[in-house]
Parts: sequence; structure tokens; C-alpha cells
Amino acid sequence: MGRSQTNLAWEVLLDLSGAGPRHERLARALRTAIRDGVLSDGAALPPSRQLAEDLDCSRWVVTQAYAQLVAEGYLGARTGSATRVRWSAEPESPAGPPASAPALPRYDLAPGLPDLRAFPRQRWLDALRGVLSVVPHSDLGLPVPGGHPRLRTVLAAYLRRCRAAAAEDVLICTGVTDGVTRVCRALRAAGITRIAVEDPGWPRLRRAAESAGLTVVGVAVDNDGLCVERIPVGVRAVIVTPAHQFPSGTVLSAPRRAGLLAWARDVDGLVLEDDYDAEFRYDRRPVSTVQGMDPARVVLLGSVGKTLSPALGIGWAVIPPQWTQRVRDANPAASAPPVLDQLTFAIFVEDGAYDRHLRAARLRYRSRRDILVTTLGPTRVSGAAAGLHLLLHLADGTDAAAVVRRAAANGLHVADLDTYRFATGEPALVLGYGNLADNTVADAVRVLHAAEDAAGSAPP
Amino acid sequence: MGRSQTNLAWEVLLDLSGAGPRHERLARALRTAIRDGVLSDGAALPPSRQLAEDLDCSRWVVTQAYAQLVAEGYLGARTGSATRVRWSAEPESPAGPPASAPALPRYDLAPGLPDLRAFPRQRWLDALRGVLSVVPHSDLGLPVPGGHPRLRTVLAAYLRRCRAAAAEDVLICTGVTDGVTRVCRALRAAGITRIAVEDPGWPRLRRAAESAGLTVVGVAVDNDGLCVERIPVGVRAVIVTPAHQFPSGTVLSAPRRAGLLAWARDVDGLVLEDDYDAEFRYDRRPVSTVQGMDPARVVLLGSVGKTLSPALGIGWAVIPPQWTQRVRDANPAASAPPVLDQLTFAIFVEDGAYDRHLRAARLRYRSRRDILVTTLGPTRVSGAAAGLHLLLHLADGTDAAAVVRRAAANGLHVADLDTYRFATGEPALVLGYGNLADNTVADAVRVLHAAEDAAGSAPP
Repeated sequence: MGRSQTNLAWEVLLDLSGAGPRHERLARALRTAIRDGVLSDGAALPPSRQLAEDLDCSRWVVTQAYAQLVAEGYLGARTGSATRVRWSAEPESPAGPPASAPALPRYDLAPGLPDLRAFPRQRWLDALRGVLSVVPHSDLGLPVPGGHPRLRTVLAAYLRRCRAAAAEDVLICTGVTDGVTRVCRALRAAGITRIAVEDPGWPRLRRAAESAGLTVVGVAVDNDGLCVERIPVGVRAVIVTPAHQFPSGTVLSAPRRAGLLAWARDVDGLVLEDDYDAEFRYDRRPVSTVQGMDPARVVLLGSVGKTLSPALGIGWAVIPPQWTQRVRDANPAASAPPVLDQLTFAIFVEDGAYDRHLRAARLRYRSRRDILVTTLGPTRVSGAAAGLHLLLHLADGTDAAAVVRRAAANGLHVADLDTYRFATGEPALVLGYGNLADNTVADAVRVLHAAEDAAGSAPP
Repeated sequence: MGRSQTNLAWEVLLDLSGAGPRHERLARALRTAIRDGVLSDGAALPPSRQLAEDLDCSRWVVTQAYAQLVAEGYLGARTGSATRVRWSAEPESPAGPPASAPALPRYDLAPGLPDLRAFPRQRWLDALRGVLSVVPHSDLGLPVPGGHPRLRTVLAAYLRRCRAAAAEDVLICTGVTDGVTRVCRALRAAGITRIAVEDPGWPRLRRAAESAGLTVVGVAVDNDGLCVERIPVGVRAVIVTPAHQFPSGTVLSAPRRAGLLAWARDVDGLVLEDDYDAEFRYDRRPVSTVQGMDPARVVLLGSVGKTLSPALGIGWAVIPPQWTQRVRDANPAASAPPVLDQLTFAIFVEDGAYDRHLRAARLRYRSRRDILVTTLGPTRVSGAAAGLHLLLHLADGTDAAAVVRRAAANGLHVADLDTYRFATGEPALVLGYGNLADNTVADAVRVLHAAEDAAGSAPP
């Protein structure tokens, strides 16, 4: 995201206040800018005549300051060429990105991301412009903890219309993890100490429950989804992904849905329904929420993380009335996303831009999935009827972790199913194709096959 | 020198985009500005010739738009006199807030808010446009929990430059409350169970500490700020507001600063420095941070809540190296603000827009403070050297709560100092003038005096 140095507002960048002659103050300001990385190594400074004009000072002041910094080793100058910064921050300088930033994979098959290339930048900007042109200044004050009323209203309508949810009111939070954390804190405060999660399942939600003080219990998943009858006696809460189980890709069957709700009533329990990629169903209309079948027993959780971008930090929870106050009380410090973002998303939904975006995304993902399944070989794939990921089953005895490592060495990021299991099992990979560039599918599969080969598995 | 209506940047205030002829678009924009209270009842509009020049349109466009709004009852016009706004907001407009939202006060003297009318809408939009035009799609993926490296770098430089902080790295959080909560959780995890807070002090921070599992201990504040020597033996952590104590308005004196750091070293403790409105110092240059004097002992906390808007949800913490990992470990579910917001703010700072905004705000607040102090009577006021609030001392025996209630009944929102105390004390009010419209200062003081009168106090 480089900003060209010539566009800088020099009179703003350089603080010439303070004591001393003007050329010294300018030298000091430039030195600070260079040290702080505002002016980076190699950056060209403006010709002295121009900077003098910008700063409304004499050209002599500028040439003196430049000369001083050349002498000090911050700048380099050659006749007939621009004066340039010749100074790099130390290795641990704050100007650099932290060492922990991971290298970007060439082929991103890591599950959990939508197509970041397709983020609707212009429409998002348009929506914010719309917000800023009408939002009353009072809305820019302290945010309402539960979310801005406008977004709550808009989202409730959206969830009723598109997810058959029973949504009268919606709590706005920063994402599904945040929503799960809040509800789990309320469970803990109500004396509930254990919660069932799907095995395999999404580790972040497991960790969220644990961080709220709950003990998690893994419950197996088969081709019909969560094996409800295996939830241990005494457990009264469960996190499920009915629309498209992560990572197995199964859809919770109708009998299991009924069973889940019967269980919840039996034990006076609570179901946390993570509706994380319900918007993308390819063979038929999206499966409705379990929440709509019994809103007194189910918390519905969703976010824009898989539809727009996890970087937006907007999520929601529809909470049974008898839990609303408890969730609020258990999270006194919880805050909603920034108001401008909430309102931007509200306008984005209201204007139909969200629906249009989802329709276009569904077509794109379906076509990408089709290519991927065909290229991989349909018999090796499961869980691809919906969502942004599928399972690739490896030959018996394959070391899945070795395949993942090999692939990573060749720039392909993919996940071992074992990562999401409580114990190891049959070798399989979880392939997320949400953020895979369309034109790289063939290459990505080639790299993947090569990794399987090298790890001793034999792709067809 | 508040912003007189004639100084408004009309081309910024009025968004003429959208469909329809130009005079209709102008009428719409003006209507919106009036409804939102940007143009308040009685405000004079510029002569049509001048506005036409500002907006680069024909005078006919302006006169048509004015005539339309006069017909609609938004404006009043008399020959030979300025066209003025003639419209007050309804108690509850249809598009307005839900029943639970408090009615907006006519005179907002509640402490804690900056001037929301002056939020730099256009510049913020410009900064987001800049971000969206260059941000790589990979930045739209899962956010880095500690904050985007770009904002961390930019903020560290800002804090070194403007707050004399020793900031090598900065943790991005959603505000000071969030930052305090995170650090308090780490304190709790390290076995520290009690924390000292200023009495009087900001209740939200006290509650944040309590929600993290700590017991708070109130420590008195005098004219030199926190009475460091009164921190009880055994307490090893303290939250302070050295730059401008809230709500007493005192500045922590140099001996007390030294004493505070000596105490922290003695007890192997930690100081949480809430730098909440340090940017606004009126009599001399802002006081530097305590953190800069001993970065190993002090957590520096700040946010844009008092400089731009609390609705943005962007804050930061500079944490001593030996606490960095502990704070991270104690907050596994904590998230940074949305990436787009972080980057927008980064560009806003880098481009100098933040500095310009702060400079303009400082002038505006100082002038508003001067008018307020003069109107109230300087001998009754204290704590007004900095920040966005001051103390108004009431006559002995006055029931401050009764004054607050009386004022509220007449549309004036103001706080009783007792609200921020652990026990009751001499009667005083906390007046926040950040969000008080300039043209209402005289009226507000009149309402306040009337409330004092009615409550049996005798204003001069």
C-alpha cells in the first residue's frame, strides 16, 4: 500500500515548531520522519526549491537542512539526481511489520475464508458515503452495547427472510467467536460448566468456550451430522453447525434436528447454532435454521466473515428471551462493532447490495467447486454440497500431515482433517476453496497431487 | 471561536450527489443537515450569492433550494435579513432511535464526548477510499489479533512524537476500557487481586477492573492529582489519569509523578496510565506521559474516543515488554477493531489529517471553555486547564443531585460530581463541554443557573 512520497503534504508532515533556527528545525523534523519510517529508505525528497515553496521558507533553509542530514548519513545526494533517504531502521525497529506475519501462500486452500478478491470495495465505500451523508451526529457518540437499532432491525428482517429464523431482536457482536464467548460466559454464570462440541469441529469455538470457563466435550459427527444421542448425560449445552458441518461438510438431517431440539427440551438445555456458511448451498435452497424451529432453545450465530470478509468484524446473535439479560450481565465490558461499520453494513443490506453479492458469490463458488471436484476426482471428495470447503479423502495409510507439509513447501496452504479432531482418524484433507483464485485451481491440484505422491499416497 | 455557521465548509457539509436536478439535490442536502441538527434552529444560512460561489453553482440553484425549504417550513426568510433555520427536531422521528434510547438533551454537558458535529466525515471517507484503492486482498482476511502492523507503526510514531511515549510497539484494541480490561485480566492471572483507582474517577474503568476479577480500592485525589502515598500497602496496580484527572481536572504534579514511579518500583507494580484527553491542553504544551519516564512500569492507554468519536472503536495500549505475553495469554478471545477501520485511521494519521483535526479542535474547545468559564464565573470553576470538562463548585449545602434533575427537566444534561465518588462530598457538577454546540453556551448556562436557583443555591 505504498503512498508515493510526492503526494505527501510536507507542511503537515514536518513539524517545524520548537526552538532553534529554521534550518535546524527542518533538519530535526526530517530526521524524525526518517527514523519513524514515515520517509522510508530510498524515498526521494522534493527538490529544495519545491519544498521551500511548500513550507514557505527560503531555499537556503532547505539546502542547509539537506546538507546536515547528508553529513549525518540520513540522506544521500548526487549531482543531477534527487536527494534520497539512505537510512534503514534497525532490525527490531517499530517501523517494520512484526516478525510473526506469515508469508502468503501461492495457493490458499486453507478453510475459513471467502473470496477476498471479490470484496465489494466500491459498494462498501458507497454505503459508507451514504451513511456519512445522513447519520445524525448523535449517532457518533457512545455506541449502544447491543448494537445500533438500525442494523438490528435490518438484520432481524434479513434473518427472517433468508434463514427462516425467528428473529425479533438481534444482538450485534464482532463475530461468531465473540458471540459464542458471550453466551458461554452466561452459561458459566448460570452454573453450567460443560458444553458439547462437534468432533471434528472448529477449534476456535472450542477455545472460546474454554476461555469462558467451560469444559468442552467432543461428540462424534457422522453422515447425518452431530450424533445427538451421544451427547453425554449431564451436558446441557452444545455448539453445532447444522447447515454445513465444519469440517466434515455434512448437513444435519431432519431427524437429527428434531432429536437435537427434543434433547434440549429434555435437559432444559441450550443449542448454539453456528450458521457460518449457510448462505452457500449449491444443490438446492439453503437449509433453514434450527433456531426457527424452536427459538426458545436455540441461539443463532452468524457473521459476515464467510460472506464478505472476516476483517469487517461484524457478527450477530439471536438469543432466546430468557437468556438475553443473562448474556448482557455476563459481559459488562463487551462492545459492539464501530457504529459507522454497523450502519454501513445496514445500508449494504437494505440497498440489496448484500443479496446481489451473495448471489454472485454463490455462482462463483459453485463453479469453482465443480472444477475442483472434477479435477480432484469426485470419488475422493465429500461434503461439497454447500459452503466453502470440502473433504479430500486420502489413500489408507497416507500421512496427511506429511502431505500438508509437502504442499506448504510448494506454496499451497491446506489443512489436515486431524487438526480439527479430538483424536486422529482416517487420513483426509480439508480444502477451503473460498479464497482460491479461479485461474489457479488446476495448478493447485497439481501441487497437491505431487505432495500426495511424495508422501506415498497415490492420487488417481 | 466556535465554528460560526458561516465558517462551515459547505461543499463538505452538503452532499450534492445522487439523482435529480441540482437545486433539488441541494434542498435535500440542506434538509438532511437541518434534520440531523448539523444546522440548528435559528442558524443563519449564508447569502445565496456566497453559497453559490462556495458550491460552484448558479445563484438560481441556491435561491430555488432556499425557497423550497421555506415552503416546507424548514427555513424562515424575511426581506433584508438572513435566511435562518426554523425547525426543531421532533421528540421521536420515525427514522429515529428505539424507545430505549434516551432522549437527546438540548444542551449536552455530559462529560466524555468530543464535538460530534465536527467529526471529519469527508476526510474519513477520503481516507477509507485511499485504503480501499490500495489495500491488498490478503489484508481482508483474518485480522492479526494485536492490530494491523501499519497502524501499530503509525501510532507508535505518533505517540513518540506527540506524547513523548516510549513506544516501540503498540497493541491495537477497541478503546481504553477494552485495554484496561485486558491488562486487568493479565494482572489477575499473575495473582494480583486488587487495583487502586482514583476517587473520584471514571466508573467505567472501575467496572472494567471488577469485571476482570479485581477488587478496586479508591485513593483520594487532591490538587496535585492522585495521592500516591495513600495507596494501601499490598496494592500493586493503579489506574491513573495524569494528564487531566477525571473528573477533578487536576494535572498530576511532577513530584507525584516521580513518587508514582518510585512506588511502582518499590512494590514491583504496574501503573495503567489513561491518557484520555491529553491532546487538549490550553495553557501550555501538553504534559508528557508518565509512561515515557519508565516504560517498564507503565501501560499507556489511549483512544480516539475523545479526539474523533467513541463510535469508531479504536484504542491502543503500549505495554511493558514483560507484560506483553501475559496480556496476550489472558485474552485469547480478544480481537482488534475491523482492519478497514484500522487502516483508515492509519492513513488519517499519516496524511496529517489527525494533526490538523486536533489543532482545529483544540482552538475550538479552548474558545468554548473560555466563554463557559467567563459566563459561569471563574471563581466557581476548577480543573479547566485541559481536556473537555471542568468542575463547577456549588454553594455549600446545595443538593447537587437536585440541580442535575432540574436541569435535565429543562433539556440540559450535566453530571453530579458525587456520581464519580466513592462517598459523597462537597457539592459540585462536572461539565463536559466537548459536545456542547457553540451557539448554545449562553442558553445552557442560563438553564443551569435557573436549576441552581430552584434547588436553593445562589449563583452569582
